[in-house]
Amino acid sequence: MNLPKRVTLKEVGPRDGLQNEKKFVTTEQKVEWINQLSESGLSHIEVSSFVHPKWIPALSDAEQVFQQIHRHSGVTYSALIPNIKGAERALQVGVDEFAVFMSASETHNRKNINKSIEDTYSVLKEVANEGKSARKNVRGYVSTVFGCPYDGHVSLEEVKKICDKLFSIGVYEISLGDTIGVANPQQVEEVIKEVKKEFGVDRFALHFHDTRGMALANTLVGLQLGVKIFDGSIGGLGGCPYAKGASGNVASEDLLFMLHEMGIETGVDAKSFLKAATFIEDVLQKTLPSHQLKIAEGMS
Amino acid sequence: MNLPKRVTLKEVGPRDGLQNEKKFVTTEQKVEWINQLSESGLSHIEVSSFVHPKWIPALSDAEQVFQQIHRHSGVTYSALIPNIKGAERALQVGVDEFAVFMSASETHNRKNINKSIEDTYSVLKEVANEGKSARKNVRGYVSTVFGCPYDGHVSLEEVKKICDKLFSIGVYEISLGDTIGVANPQQVEEVIKEVKKEFGVDRFALHFHDTRGMALANTLVGLQLGVKIFDGSIGGLGGCPYAKGASGNVASEDLLFMLHEMGIETGVDAKSFLKAATFIEDVLQKTLPSHQLKIAEGMS
Repeated sequence: MNLPKRVTLKEVGPRDGLQNEKKFVTTEQKVEWINQLSESGLSHIEVSSFVHPKWIPALSDAEQVFQQIHRHSGVTYSALIPNIKGAERALQVGVDEFAVFMSASETHNRKNINKSIEDTYSVLKEVANEGKSARKNVRGYVSTVFGCPYDGHVSLEEVKKICDKLFSIGVYEISLGDTIGVANPQQVEEVIKEVKKEFGVDRFALHFHDTRGMALANTLVGLQLGVKIFDGSIGGLGGCPYAKGASGNVASEDLLFMLHEMGIETGVDAKSFLKAATFIEDVLQKTLPSHQLKIAEGMS
Repeated sequence: MNLPKRVTLKEVGPRDGLQNEKKFVTTEQKVEWINQLSESGLSHIEVSSFVHPKWIPALSDAEQVFQQIHRHSGVTYSALIPNIKGAERALQVGVDEFAVFMSASETHNRKNINKSIEDTYSVLKEVANEGKSARKNVRGYVSTVFGCPYDGHVSLEEVKKICDKLFSIGVYEISLGDTIGVANPQQVEEVIKEVKKEFGVDRFALHFHDTRGMALANTLVGLQLGVKIFDGSIGGLGGCPYAKGASGNVASEDLLFMLHEMGIETGVDAKSFLKAATFIEDVLQKTLPSHQLKIAEGMS
């Protein structure tokens, strides 16, 4: 099997995982948790979001979290930046990297960003310019690449057009998201082969949800096609609002287990990572949809 | 992606799924449920086990179930047969196919069958002979092929030796089992390539557990190497006794979803299959570890 020797896990739990949680995780708890993540050997942590607090109250303490975490050298602490106001807030607390986002389907983009796809570019460009003039890297998220809860099928031509636009405004990497967990391995192959042909595989990360149990199968296809960057959410944090009780983001520790078992290095220590997963599960006081957590709990 | 056009799902839920359940599912409920499965388009259902009732009380009504189910033409109704006494009981109620079983690791085999691997063959041969003289097909299960909860690593040479023995006693097909859900895709590739070279791929089925979320990734590898028969357990029934709360058998409906999404035919109607999954979940009064069930419940 032709697999990369080393893969980077980009941990999105503190942002993507917590943003829909009803229980407010205190700043102190967030800081302790992110410090644990830093110590696990991760090289990239998406810490928070600089969206207006009224939209995502769970992450209203983005500034305080960035000010209080202990930063490790070699770790990139990124944040989601929706607009120029968010960019200014982020720069004040020294965010390492900006992440901008949009959807590949019109309706999801409108519901999420309140703009058409066409009108989104100018906002993202403004954010990207602000980041770049402060010498920050800018990462792009494209949601609903493999299917949309409203529009259903998503055109691969549209995905490529969006990628082209995002690269042209200075994004260094695009994370292709299966927002509702409908991607199947054959489709993943089709999409990656196409974007690889057009832009090269090194500029893409994959962001899978395990809603239908296919996250690791889809990951495997990505690996076989040379993708070396995968997003994961610790504990499988981040529910899917379209299917109550169903799992959302693939649990980073499940991803790590498969990678490590296949001899792929990540630099992350699975044991200390799992400790951080147990920590946030205890804080949230609910069972998280992570296979590795369930096994650890069943064994103890 | 090189995938088979058609795959056979062998449904093991009524036997493998129920055998560890504490709640006794009444004969009437089992019969109604299996009738629903027959109507879903399955071609193979493992109905029960003719193990001594004192070992598996949950399946003590094997005879009654076989006598009362409505048999569809084109559906094979099989049963697990541990010994000659079980074979005689099974023949009295017209079981279509025998399944014999053993482990690829010495300690698991001893704990499960109370015999060494070497001493198991003669019992299996006796059962197989009894089946064949009544013109029944005999299927073989090999457990712990990808790892053992006691012995850890399992030798591929030992697996091949066992396969060779089982084929020599007249087994027509061997289901390779990942009993504790530790198989990773690279290992699955290695094992299948080896047994394929020695015996041909058409004589093998794969039996995965989703304990670590890798069942569908491992299935994908099997498909790519030409395996066309997969075991599944409706609802993901069948806990893993080594890790409380962790999922065991891959849910057949999760398997079906991935296959159908990739355009692979199974002959099974996903909708009526899911109804049968909901039925048994209601009977057992507990949440089963099936992604498709969770999605259906979240949507309703």
